[in-house]
Amino acid sequence: MESTSFPPPLEILVQRLSKLPGIGRKTAQRLALSILRNPQEDARALAEAIVNVKTSIRWCSLCFSFTDIDPCAICANPQRNRKLLCVVEQPNNIFPLEKTRAYRGLYHVLQGSISPLDGIGPEQLRIRELHQRIQQSPIDELILATNPTVHGEVTAIYLQQEFQHQVPKITRLARGLPSGGDLEYIDEYTLSEALQGRKSL
Amino acid sequence: MESTSFPPPLEILVQRLSKLPGIGRKTAQRLALSILRNPQEDARALAEAIVNVKTSIRWCSLCFSFTDIDPCAICANPQRNRKLLCVVEQPNNIFPLEKTRAYRGLYHVLQGSISPLDGIGPEQLRIRELHQRIQQSPIDELILATNPTVHGEVTAIYLQQEFQHQVPKITRLARGLPSGGDLEYIDEYTLSEALQGRKSL
Repeated sequence: MESTSFPPPLEILVQRLSKLPGIGRKTAQRLALSILRNPQEDARALAEAIVNVKTSIRWCSLCFSFTDIDPCAICANPQRNRKLLCVVEQPNNIFPLEKTRAYRGLYHVLQGSISPLDGIGPEQLRIRELHQRIQQSPIDELILATNPTVHGEVTAIYLQQEFQHQVPKITRLARGLPSGGDLEYIDEYTLSEALQGRKSL
Repeated sequence: MESTSFPPPLEILVQRLSKLPGIGRKTAQRLALSILRNPQEDARALAEAIVNVKTSIRWCSLCFSFTDIDPCAICANPQRNRKLLCVVEQPNNIFPLEKTRAYRGLYHVLQGSISPLDGIGPEQLRIRELHQRIQQSPIDELILATNPTVHGEVTAIYLQQEFQHQVPKITRLARGLPSGGDLEYIDEYTLSEALQGRKSL
């Protein structure tokens, strides 16, 4: 051990924490020292939670969100409208939609978006499974809720072309001004979409 | 499980991560999802590192820094000047001092600073141990390197009074302009200290 570095077990923890997204060396040190100072039970509980999440969380075989029971709670809920399917990029995109309480259909998680530069084409996403799913239980409407980004848009356009003959109605989340925004601080791109999508009162 | 929340094992991990300093709910979610996505080995290694740090890191019985061997590498190093003792608040305060390569004495970690409002008085710090240590092996100089904050200053003043008859020389790290700073952006307090401490050329 060089005296300018941490003792090995602490250094290993710092390096492991640094691998997490958005955690740099300084933050990892702060977290490691906090783990070191906190009670032994806290450290053990955190370590167990990390192992548990990997062993007990899997993909739902229907919607490909993460779940501890298969099918997941949403897919298994008989009160959900099975004729409505909302496509999202990632499992965590489901939670903001659920919080609105404005949607009572089912979801399908692509587990990514089309991004040729990153080597992600349609085959890498759960699009084949979406075809099979719609074939087995036909739907009335497919809602494309991919992110309002270039990759999300490309993915939505691809899905629209791919499913237009299989699904009666395909919709996309509205684009426009965010609630509580101020025109002065809204980017031109959002503003031009809000203009294009303007509604008569 | 309510459909607006994570599956329980994931929720437990999010809550555990949220207990770490500076980690809010959103960051904890991002970290938990990253752990979920990364390989099983990474999760296991992180969990092991957390448990290891608690089981194998202890306080050095001489300087009260953290260490995996007792006494720590610095205290055990025969090339260190045993007549020089530098007092710091926390173990991680040692590393920046070591990085300077300008100090080759030993350290003593107080494990805090005097803060009556938080219930931390001299008895809660490793001051008794510092007395014993100096009694057992007398030193030439005690360098007070507590933080340049109110608590650090109070602690330094306390230590100065406490040890002035036991140690021939007590010094405090210099206060003044930080290297690379611009006078325009330096606070009045630092500037007034730099003025008071000015040196003739």
